[in-house]
Amino acid sequence: MRYSEYLLSTLKETPADAEITSHQLMLRAGMIRKVAAGIYSYLPLGLRSIRKVERIIREEMERAGAIELLMPMVIPAELWEESGRWEQYGKELMRLKDRKDTSFCLGPTHEEVITDIVRREVRSYRQLPLNLYQIQGKFRDEIRPRFGLMRGREFIMKDAYSFDIDEQGLDVAYEKMYQAYRRIFERCGLKFRAVEADTGNIGGTASHEFMVLADSGEDAIVSCDSCQYAANVEKAEVRNSVASPPAPTLEMSRVLTPARKTIEEVALFLETAPERLVKTLILQTDGGEHLAVLLRGDRELNEIKLCRLLGCNEVELASEETVIRVTGAPSGFAGPVGLSLRILADHEVAGMADFICGANEKDLHLAGVNLGRDFSVEALADLRQAVAGDPCPRCAGKLESWRGIEVGHVFKLGTKYSKALNATVLDDQGQERLLIMGCYGIGVGRTVAAAIEQNHDENGIIFPMPIAPFQVLVTMVNPNDEAVNAAAVDLYRALQDSGIEVLLDDRDERPGSKFKDADLIGIPLRVTVGARGLKEGALELQERRGGERTMLPLAEAAGLLTERVRKALL
Amino acid sequence: MRYSEYLLSTLKETPADAEITSHQLMLRAGMIRKVAAGIYSYLPLGLRSIRKVERIIREEMERAGAIELLMPMVIPAELWEESGRWEQYGKELMRLKDRKDTSFCLGPTHEEVITDIVRREVRSYRQLPLNLYQIQGKFRDEIRPRFGLMRGREFIMKDAYSFDIDEQGLDVAYEKMYQAYRRIFERCGLKFRAVEADTGNIGGTASHEFMVLADSGEDAIVSCDSCQYAANVEKAEVRNSVASPPAPTLEMSRVLTPARKTIEEVALFLETAPERLVKTLILQTDGGEHLAVLLRGDRELNEIKLCRLLGCNEVELASEETVIRVTGAPSGFAGPVGLSLRILADHEVAGMADFICGANEKDLHLAGVNLGRDFSVEALADLRQAVAGDPCPRCAGKLESWRGIEVGHVFKLGTKYSKALNATVLDDQGQERLLIMGCYGIGVGRTVAAAIEQNHDENGIIFPMPIAPFQVLVTMVNPNDEAVNAAAVDLYRALQDSGIEVLLDDRDERPGSKFKDADLIGIPLRVTVGARGLKEGALELQERRGGERTMLPLAEAAGLLTERVRKALL
Repeated sequence: MRYSEYLLSTLKETPADAEITSHQLMLRAGMIRKVAAGIYSYLPLGLRSIRKVERIIREEMERAGAIELLMPMVIPAELWEESGRWEQYGKELMRLKDRKDTSFCLGPTHEEVITDIVRREVRSYRQLPLNLYQIQGKFRDEIRPRFGLMRGREFIMKDAYSFDIDEQGLDVAYEKMYQAYRRIFERCGLKFRAVEADTGNIGGTASHEFMVLADSGEDAIVSCDSCQYAANVEKAEVRNSVASPPAPTLEMSRVLTPARKTIEEVALFLETAPERLVKTLILQTDGGEHLAVLLRGDRELNEIKLCRLLGCNEVELASEETVIRVTGAPSGFAGPVGLSLRILADHEVAGMADFICGANEKDLHLAGVNLGRDFSVEALADLRQAVAGDPCPRCAGKLESWRGIEVGHVFKLGTKYSKALNATVLDDQGQERLLIMGCYGIGVGRTVAAAIEQNHDENGIIFPMPIAPFQVLVTMVNPNDEAVNAAAVDLYRALQDSGIEVLLDDRDERPGSKFKDADLIGIPLRVTVGARGLKEGALELQERRGGERTMLPLAEAAGLLTERVRKALL
Repeated sequence: MRYSEYLLSTLKETPADAEITSHQLMLRAGMIRKVAAGIYSYLPLGLRSIRKVERIIREEMERAGAIELLMPMVIPAELWEESGRWEQYGKELMRLKDRKDTSFCLGPTHEEVITDIVRREVRSYRQLPLNLYQIQGKFRDEIRPRFGLMRGREFIMKDAYSFDIDEQGLDVAYEKMYQAYRRIFERCGLKFRAVEADTGNIGGTASHEFMVLADSGEDAIVSCDSCQYAANVEKAEVRNSVASPPAPTLEMSRVLTPARKTIEEVALFLETAPERLVKTLILQTDGGEHLAVLLRGDRELNEIKLCRLLGCNEVELASEETVIRVTGAPSGFAGPVGLSLRILADHEVAGMADFICGANEKDLHLAGVNLGRDFSVEALADLRQAVAGDPCPRCAGKLESWRGIEVGHVFKLGTKYSKALNATVLDDQGQERLLIMGCYGIGVGRTVAAAIEQNHDENGIIFPMPIAPFQVLVTMVNPNDEAVNAAAVDLYRALQDSGIEVLLDDRDERPGSKFKDADLIGIPLRVTVGARGLKEGALELQERRGGERTMLPLAEAAGLLTERVRKALL
């Protein structure tokens, strides 16, 4: 492709409303343009990367035995009513009515449609297993679309759905998808972790998220430094490392802490460390119950673990009014001693002797407090957020922590949808059995954005070769110099003939401006054709990653570049 | 692909609501399934054909220098308000509102979005010409979706838009697309005509439709038997072949025609031919004007030609009340003699001497009527529908008539959208100039449906090789026969290794049922692996088209089949 004939306009300025790097760079590099909040056009350069990710996905899905189909984007409400999601799904579901006033939604995901297809087409266990996938535009009316393709409203997704006669079948299907996902993100050239994820409200039995590692990632994940364990912090287990409760050495005493309410303020005022304090959270469940949860002062509550323990959907901090009513003091001074409320504590609290906590009186804390002697709890459990340095729950290793961007999700659904839609097949005994389902998603645009979050520098994008929109950029220093122009065009054609995807920068622009654009759009290999080099029969190759420069003999340039590209794709 | 592992369930019965052959066969062959009126899922077999058409389109678009991008399906109303179409477009435009009550539509076409992109990205004539295309799901809320993919609501379309600095540029872009479209439909293996089409309300300067020829086609087209002329009958010109008006030979006389109102009734009653009569149509324009139009008795009015002559948008037959008021008689007896109304006549009327027409009195006609002597007209013009046998308007040939299915449309838009959206670039004088646009569409699903309308027999589909979902079907007569099974699997693998797309029918079904399915799904080449043939070291090849059977030596089968496929794709 000749730059002069292409639609590729770069921006010098960073658009004001782009907060994260990938969004800024995709706009500046002319990959995407906003049409409305969370709705983008993929310009030619951006679409090329999208298509490369799609192709890798397709190849690996086919290799794993999944079969491609294509469902509609506009879905009749009746299917969603059958599954119950028409009511359950909130405002993210884009609802619309046709000219006959029939209700539809724009598919944010396609469990209902695929289950409907399979219940109509598949009658016998002999037609199973089946894994059906599509790559398609989806729509979710996000309350706060942001970060470009990272959290858009209209977005491209690969969604696959597996159907089996039993749980063992699902296990096999799930493992195949898990491995296919590993290959997909490896082939995209990305550093990622597959982490155990919470199954949330869907209530499936297992789930993994595929996280591209990037400092800007919205998700926190932990992984073991010696075994394969990795999990979203939402889900990451913390091993109970309290061998035996320590013996108290101090009497309990009251200490004045005037207006010191936070853990940090109290620790500073009492000249101790937050780890010596116990934090008492007064919480309210969505069922209206109040309870207290104790954590070591420097720890964070993991609400998902707590909800799971309590069997509720949500917990939140109790109102100030409630705190005063149940503790007798304003918030900041709650403590377990003498508290007539259900009390749960994180395991770690059982390993703390002589700690400091609130006294349930304004401006007062207790010191030398000990669990067992001074108060008791209903249960000790794993209730805190895992952090770097925690022991691995599976081996003797230590956890490391990362930020990640979720690009894929595999999920054992079980019978949630087959039950709601009564999707059954006959088993080998002639009995009707509910289909056992799994679902498997990849955000295609988000994968490209995540790749950019992971691969860039201050000058622009550094595309991994497998998803680069072009593999080689040939820059004419001066297109009006006949020899330069001819040599560059020759190289361009020779590379095209070898099947290399090459962009020829033949624009009549200053070389500096071309090099800036080259850095910005991040093509992995850049060849500069200039008059000086040509005199010596050589072209300069610069790698976008690392910036290493080498001279290529003119006659061998096409061959050497082709080899470099091929190697990078292995 | 093994049939036993595929999602492919055929139907023995023709679904009741499928009216035309392609719709019936696509349902029966398991290519598509209805999700709602005019909304379909593409099952794996159907999607394979869709993707093949898409690939051919993509290759030819790239060859013609068009650049792919992807615009959103959900489009903000403000862009459509800018173009004026938010008001103009009727209920076919699917409108919706997001959670913030902002209005959007589902794109039925993307002139606004692409014009918005280009006005933002392109500043100079040096960035032109530009032709941008996408392949995408579109939505039109058709009042009566029908015929499966032929007139669906959600459908896949390739839409391209060209941008030039002047009309000459548009001419070049248009010609490139015209030639690309010819290659696309040729490569799909279809018999088609590119016909001149009416530019309708859009008011462009030229337009061609690409029509796949099929008896069931909704459109009537004519083409010359000796030159390249072809046109939609809506647009087809009729050459004026009246050399000089004939001389009257009869006096005008009144003839009783009691209760004979139609041309056929009058001709029969007076024992003459409809060609000897003149038909007088009393019409009303959308501007409220009344006029009379004269045609030879056996001809049909072409309303589009009349509207163009009158400069109006619509004409319709005047009400009975109006007919009585302006002619003095009920409808069926109108005639030009003594009529005080604006009268236009088709050229042909000027060549008729001594004809019969209504007398503007109930139950009465006039005979021996002659234009010029007995009445006059305001103008003679080409006002009738062209029919087979008419002289070609361009050469000495004769017109033939066909039925066709519109699968593609190329259109010179001019400045309609660039003007509305103020999309300008600087020309070489530094002056702002409106972009000159063209638009170019192909219905992808409709192309597959049209291919089936054109290529089928009573047993099922007969796919042209280039768009067949699979190229070869290998049928095991009895999969439980080890030798048969092994030979079939060997052939299957050998074909796959040669890059042939092969479906292996390894189902444990009766051979008769497999052959029926084979005919239905229409794979071009079918190889039967049976015990009897194997003993003789041979396999039977049957061509779906024509049904010719040949025996292939086992050892050479893969090679011969590969060669056959390759030849069919040239």
